[in-house]
Amino acid sequence: MDPSISALFSPKSIAVVGASRTPGKIGYEIMANILGYGYGGRLYPVNPTASEILGVKCYPKVSSIPGEVDMVVVSVPSKSVVEVIEDAGKVGAKVALVISSGFKEVGNASLEEEVVRKARSYGMRVLGPNIFGVVYTPSRLNASFGPRNVIPGGIAFITQSGALGIALMGMTIVEKIGVSSIVSVGNKADIEDADLLEYLAEDPNTKVILIYLEGVNDGRRFIKVASEVVTKKPIVVIKAGRTEVGAKAVASHTGSLAGNVIVYKVAFSQAGILQANDVEEAFDISRTLANIPPPTSERLVVVTNGGGAGVLVTDTLAEHGISLTTPPPPLAEQIRKLVPPFASLANPIDVTGMISNENYVNSLLLALNDPEVGAVLGVYCQTAVTDPTMIAGILISKIREVGGLSKPLALAFIGGEETYMAIRRLNDFGIPTFPTPERAAAAIASMYSYMRMRNNVMLRLKEVLNA
Amino acid sequence: MDPSISALFSPKSIAVVGASRTPGKIGYEIMANILGYGYGGRLYPVNPTASEILGVKCYPKVSSIPGEVDMVVVSVPSKSVVEVIEDAGKVGAKVALVISSGFKEVGNASLEEEVVRKARSYGMRVLGPNIFGVVYTPSRLNASFGPRNVIPGGIAFITQSGALGIALMGMTIVEKIGVSSIVSVGNKADIEDADLLEYLAEDPNTKVILIYLEGVNDGRRFIKVASEVVTKKPIVVIKAGRTEVGAKAVASHTGSLAGNVIVYKVAFSQAGILQANDVEEAFDISRTLANIPPPTSERLVVVTNGGGAGVLVTDTLAEHGISLTTPPPPLAEQIRKLVPPFASLANPIDVTGMISNENYVNSLLLALNDPEVGAVLGVYCQTAVTDPTMIAGILISKIREVGGLSKPLALAFIGGEETYMAIRRLNDFGIPTFPTPERAAAAIASMYSYMRMRNNVMLRLKEVLNA
Repeated sequence: MDPSISALFSPKSIAVVGASRTPGKIGYEIMANILGYGYGGRLYPVNPTASEILGVKCYPKVSSIPGEVDMVVVSVPSKSVVEVIEDAGKVGAKVALVISSGFKEVGNASLEEEVVRKARSYGMRVLGPNIFGVVYTPSRLNASFGPRNVIPGGIAFITQSGALGIALMGMTIVEKIGVSSIVSVGNKADIEDADLLEYLAEDPNTKVILIYLEGVNDGRRFIKVASEVVTKKPIVVIKAGRTEVGAKAVASHTGSLAGNVIVYKVAFSQAGILQANDVEEAFDISRTLANIPPPTSERLVVVTNGGGAGVLVTDTLAEHGISLTTPPPPLAEQIRKLVPPFASLANPIDVTGMISNENYVNSLLLALNDPEVGAVLGVYCQTAVTDPTMIAGILISKIREVGGLSKPLALAFIGGEETYMAIRRLNDFGIPTFPTPERAAAAIASMYSYMRMRNNVMLRLKEVLNA
Repeated sequence: MDPSISALFSPKSIAVVGASRTPGKIGYEIMANILGYGYGGRLYPVNPTASEILGVKCYPKVSSIPGEVDMVVVSVPSKSVVEVIEDAGKVGAKVALVISSGFKEVGNASLEEEVVRKARSYGMRVLGPNIFGVVYTPSRLNASFGPRNVIPGGIAFITQSGALGIALMGMTIVEKIGVSSIVSVGNKADIEDADLLEYLAEDPNTKVILIYLEGVNDGRRFIKVASEVVTKKPIVVIKAGRTEVGAKAVASHTGSLAGNVIVYKVAFSQAGILQANDVEEAFDISRTLANIPPPTSERLVVVTNGGGAGVLVTDTLAEHGISLTTPPPPLAEQIRKLVPPFASLANPIDVTGMISNENYVNSLLLALNDPEVGAVLGVYCQTAVTDPTMIAGILISKIREVGGLSKPLALAFIGGEETYMAIRRLNDFGIPTFPTPERAAAAIASMYSYMRMRNNVMLRLKEVLNA
């Protein structure tokens, strides 16, 4: 494992060059986030005109710090970056986070190349430039000027976009989406997605890797690494520039080529990468893949208390290549005892709007417990005879009793205020729950898509080995 | 205008047959909703064993009510419905809402036909059976057993599904989506979507008609009426059974045919009906079409403070057939004065993450004020140097100053808690604002789709007239 990449996620010590005493300045916000999020390693602000910042002793330069420095966060004007890298390189810093902008993104490619050359000459790797920082929740590291109180969880989020990346970081907090890591890759002058993928594939805290991608420098390596990673964990990509027009917009935005639209699509598919249609879907499926176990068989059963909502999920599942087969007969027989005589025991199983809280939950549990069922999608429409918060409470306690989910369960809870409360509770507990039928269906479908793509990739890798 | 359909939306008096004193019973909930939502007409509970319900004098049957009865709400066992219809028909009731289930949906088609025949013999029309009721906010009518405090607004929502319909009714309250009307059509034994469309087309309180549709009885009439209606206001359809598999699920759910998938798609498109991909999109575009004026030209300008988010909306717009042309030169020149030198003045206009609250708003306003610009999509990523609630506040006060929007503006606000507060404020004010780039792009695109479809329909209607 590249020690520079390890240092990026779990540095033993950090120097912040350009640390500031002025709230609002980037050099202040990064310091405040590192301290405030609870980083446990050594922290050295570097600023020649200050003696201490936020109560931490300050040093005039990196080379004057008494201890070893793993990571250097660089937030100084672009013209001074090479000098800082030189100084940090001399004392053995492993990785530099170049926050500073004013490089390739404004046409200054040669300065960017010089930064990388200088760093490499000392065996140091560079993240950026033009980034907002790095978060790694298992080491309580928030070396970014984004929001502070990121929620720990299983998603590693790599973003090529700064403003959007910070904004989505904020969104994860509101939507209670747990992350293991957030990495702003910016201009990708040195450290590329593939480097991060190699590391995150082995990271036990990361269950899913989500990438906002405009373009890659080395497409061949990206695809090669990605297809190895997906045998271990899913990769979800939001590809900006997935249309010809969008690809041109990428070019004008970053100066980098977004590449041929079709080439990307085909390559993603062959590598087993899930391409999300939009930001919402990307987080929906990442959250689902991160929180629940893989399907135990091809057989997906839908349990709904609303026929119409059952049809909507059937449509969405069909569009994702999933067809519903009739439920196993023993399951149908057991559920028959809980539902009115006019209930439909096809798939979706329509337990009807007359069902009680308890029997809705019991129907879900019977489906989950059936050995032939591989995954369950529960669809619930708020009715006068049921209470969504009670359903959530009963379901959570029953699943807790058996020690958690042993196969995937995703839920659509549709309704008013109490339903939204139930959604929050279920998500907090770790059952992916959505406010519309289609979002839940797309989320559970992604588990099957991943399973199939992964199998294809493994078959191909095997063929290569046997050839 | 059919007086029965007028009576459905604005009855002068209502009899509730099967009214109950027991909270939780449908006959109680409907009474409580009619009273609680502030209906101003006369209300007569009908129940032979009660003298008053919720403080309102009770009658043993409809024919014993002293005054005229416009609408009869029927919530009695299915076998007693014909008798109630007979009694109400005799005294001249105009419309019956048959809440009761136990008809065609459970195989009892002949009883359903008898109900309609009986009603028609008295010139009465029937909504239902198997429905949850009717809401019409301009007359403060909530004759349903769904949630009570529906928010007044411009969307008329017609739903063939009961459980899903009630659940979505709850969702509109949480999401602050204003409705003029909610009509549960159930089995559509008599009153069909086309009858409602004809009325709602002329209703000044309805700006958009949103239909959850599984199937129609008279497809030819539906399409004919719809294509006339869309020349006046948009129709958005959520078609359950839009895949072959989904269509089969409809058949097993309602016993009605969902029809050929392709036939529906083509017919919708020719009639100028917007087909939504999912529930979320349906409400997103309905809310947008209901709240903002139509585009004044083909030219859509995107203003973003995040390049990546700009690319994502470019992709979504392209997928909806909208290509972005360079901004009018005078607009570019004016915005140039507000933005850093490295800002991109192409379309999307990337005002960069360095822009201030005031100048982000000013950029939006400049775009809105340019005579060549037909519509504006604003994309905002929460950054450290801006405050989303301040941006919302400034924007709202500036737009209020000029007396409201004169061309469409939709917004994507992406970020943390303050961003979500800003989204709620902007939506409350009437500017459709969404938490992801793609949802805002799809919303503004729907205005152009509607404009184009409407033009096509009008051309065809003109050809028919000239032929």
